[in-house]
Amino acid sequence: MMSHDEDQVRAVIWRDDALELLDQRLLPMEIRYQRLTTGVEVAEAIRNMVVRGAPAIGITAAYGVVLAARAHWAENPDHWRKSLHEDWQRLASSRPTAVNLLWALRRMEPIIAECSSNPVERLLAEARAIHEDDIAANRRMGQLGAAVLGERGAVLTHCNAGALATGGYGTALGVIRTGHAAGLIERVYADETRPWLQGARLTAWELVQDSIPVTLLADGAAAALMQQGRVRWVIVGADRIAANGDVANKIGTYGLAIAARHHGVRFMVVAPTSTVDLSIPDGTAIPIEQRAAEELLTLGGQPVAAAGTEVWNPSFDVTPAELVDALVTERGVVWWPDTAKMTGIMGEMSDAI
Amino acid sequence: MMSHDEDQVRAVIWRDDALELLDQRLLPMEIRYQRLTTGVEVAEAIRNMVVRGAPAIGITAAYGVVLAARAHWAENPDHWRKSLHEDWQRLASSRPTAVNLLWALRRMEPIIAECSSNPVERLLAEARAIHEDDIAANRRMGQLGAAVLGERGAVLTHCNAGALATGGYGTALGVIRTGHAAGLIERVYADETRPWLQGARLTAWELVQDSIPVTLLADGAAAALMQQGRVRWVIVGADRIAANGDVANKIGTYGLAIAARHHGVRFMVVAPTSTVDLSIPDGTAIPIEQRAAEELLTLGGQPVAAAGTEVWNPSFDVTPAELVDALVTERGVVWWPDTAKMTGIMGEMSDAI
Repeated sequence: MMSHDEDQVRAVIWRDDALELLDQRLLPMEIRYQRLTTGVEVAEAIRNMVVRGAPAIGITAAYGVVLAARAHWAENPDHWRKSLHEDWQRLASSRPTAVNLLWALRRMEPIIAECSSNPVERLLAEARAIHEDDIAANRRMGQLGAAVLGERGAVLTHCNAGALATGGYGTALGVIRTGHAAGLIERVYADETRPWLQGARLTAWELVQDSIPVTLLADGAAAALMQQGRVRWVIVGADRIAANGDVANKIGTYGLAIAARHHGVRFMVVAPTSTVDLSIPDGTAIPIEQRAAEELLTLGGQPVAAAGTEVWNPSFDVTPAELVDALVTERGVVWWPDTAKMTGIMGEMSDAI
Repeated sequence: MMSHDEDQVRAVIWRDDALELLDQRLLPMEIRYQRLTTGVEVAEAIRNMVVRGAPAIGITAAYGVVLAARAHWAENPDHWRKSLHEDWQRLASSRPTAVNLLWALRRMEPIIAECSSNPVERLLAEARAIHEDDIAANRRMGQLGAAVLGERGAVLTHCNAGALATGGYGTALGVIRTGHAAGLIERVYADETRPWLQGARLTAWELVQDSIPVTLLADGAAAALMQQGRVRWVIVGADRIAANGDVANKIGTYGLAIAARHHGVRFMVVAPTSTVDLSIPDGTAIPIEQRAAEELLTLGGQPVAAAGTEVWNPSFDVTPAELVDALVTERGVVWWPDTAKMTGIMGEMSDAI
């Protein structure tokens, strides 16, 4: 159905001088794009999870800078930088955990600093480059990750680290797409991923589109699935990776990593190097977003828990590097990551730049 | 609010010659009892989860036998046993995993076999005894379990093993109630427990009624909670316990047990000996109920996953005995259960009978 690259779903599209975001809150029942024309709108869309997924958020923020710069330049070419700074801050603080957001915004900074004429064209070129680099990185990670899968079997994934979470193709789902095409993955088990149900709403939808067999399960059923020997790998994305290889990802990932180790199931994290934050020594320093109590207290707008119930609703958890068997980046596969290996692979990239 | 025993919520009530079941599918928004007068209605109510929880199902089935016997005796006193047998079978097969169901039905069997006159009065007395024994067992387990909690702290529970799941007071929540009253439990973390949300809908409601501080979390957040050192015990109920101490309980329990062991959090199972099935050597032989795909494919009647998504929806999982630190029964606490210890405690009970 969407077998050609060109046909594959895109969460983030620059079209006719505006940013179009596929409203992921409406999927899979409705495919509707929001058309955004200001930096403020973009920050709100990130905060409200119209778009989600660390790489997709980064790309979106970069386009947000383009829109903000255009508006502020048109408003007053003498003071556009000062006004843009406010929008930049707003974008930077729209969600706290995914470091790709800051990484992408920082890629836009030199252009903002250097440009004396209208910056829009150069900023747009950079945002497009960030977007295209991300898709290329996903393709590369797909190949690298699929190459280490070993014999044919089923895999388990959590949340959505697919085309919808990235510029296109996906990180974890990129490996799964390549692995399935190579005949190495026979079925994908997808955790539904409470409270937002990204697994049910997004991952299952993407995989059905690609005719990859997908079986949905409650998050709590994953350990029993492993106990029955049904999966060979757990494959997930990441929102931020610390210098020692600790991985922040969607809440529930850490429990999967513990269960995988317990059963001898291997655990793969797939993330571009833009997800790595060498300024943070380990996972304890990664800021973890707490989301609204209503996400657990209501269902479809109706209350499901008694008044007086308190809520703990972290959006992410941290999986220690020691539970990660393979970290797949576009620069290569890091087996059993640690600080030395992480510094090494990031240094290689710095050298390359 | 319901601090006196007499005021505590009852899921199963025999009143005015009929069985009244609190419809747990409507909680916590609506408190409505279904009034049942036939065995067929009772079997349907168990199947449809109007009532749930292994001990509550057993008690309900016993009252179902009373209703069935009354109808069939009135119909034809010469053939009541044959007609009753059909209803007995229907009750026995209404749900597959909770062995308390069969245990309660078997307690009714001798009366059915021996009674030559109208059996209703004797059957009702036996059903009432099953009900009262369960509440007494829960009180006793509450004391025994609370006595081993150690220093004050928070605990985590899964699904609902409370008054609603039993004749009254609860198994896991019985220990929690007693432990809280003794000042040993400062807070209860409650997994929401997908897909039925028994934690959100039932456990939080019970604890709020009792003014015990309760914090709701997504099932996937439990491992992160333990990582942060927030809980000292995981305390759960059981639907069937094999001869070696393997425990079938609500899906998600097994993953909690793995995570608890990983973090040095202790894992307590609270269940009356009616939950133990010595005829089954280990957990692999426990029948695990698979429930409808719709429980994961829809939310509040609306589809949430793409057409073509398959579903794996087991209602229970099996936690190996090696992950159970303490099994609390009304006969005593079994530390690190195994076949010898289980046979011992069940033998003690047989002797006592």
